[in-house]
Amino acid sequence: MYLVKVYVMYKDSILDPQGEAVKGAIHRLGYLAVEEVRIGKYFEMKLSKSDADIEKQVNEICDKLLANVNMESYRYEIVEEK
Amino acid sequence: MYLVKVYVMYKDSILDPQGEAVKGAIHRLGYLAVEEVRIGKYFEMKLSKSDADIEKQVNEICDKLLANVNMESYRYEIVEEK
Repeated sequence: MYLVKVYVMYKDSILDPQGEAVKGAIHRLGYLAVEEVRIGKYFEMKLSKSDADIEKQVNEICDKLLANVNMESYRYEIVEEK
Repeated sequence: MYLVKVYVMYKDSILDPQGEAVKGAIHRLGYLAVEEVRIGKYFEMKLSKSDADIEKQVNEICDKLLANVNMESYRYEIVEEK
């Protein structure tokens, strides 16, 4: 079994209005040290072991489904579990 | 400057219908090795350095704003940057 953790974020060049809104809310709570907030998505997938190349599969799933590669970048970690 | 990475996930006891829907879509693409998908939120915050206790601030921001502690659990990493 593999545990795959995928992080999807807007690219730096893309504005993140949701993050700006959360930053405003954090400031109104009084935490003025927070200078920037960006919001992304986080996916945890469990994959059964197979002969297929797991990195290739994860790349394809991210490109086709989990991330909009025009606006978002992604990275992932693969953890092997018993 | 600190970079704080916050991961918010539904607790294991809470159903994640969005994750189930994504799993269905992944299966329809032909990746049948994927057995479970859970979706969470990912926040990156930049905090300026101050005398205040950064862990305390981050805990408070998560409890009050970023996570619904009844249904969600969170974890975070704090990275010190120059």
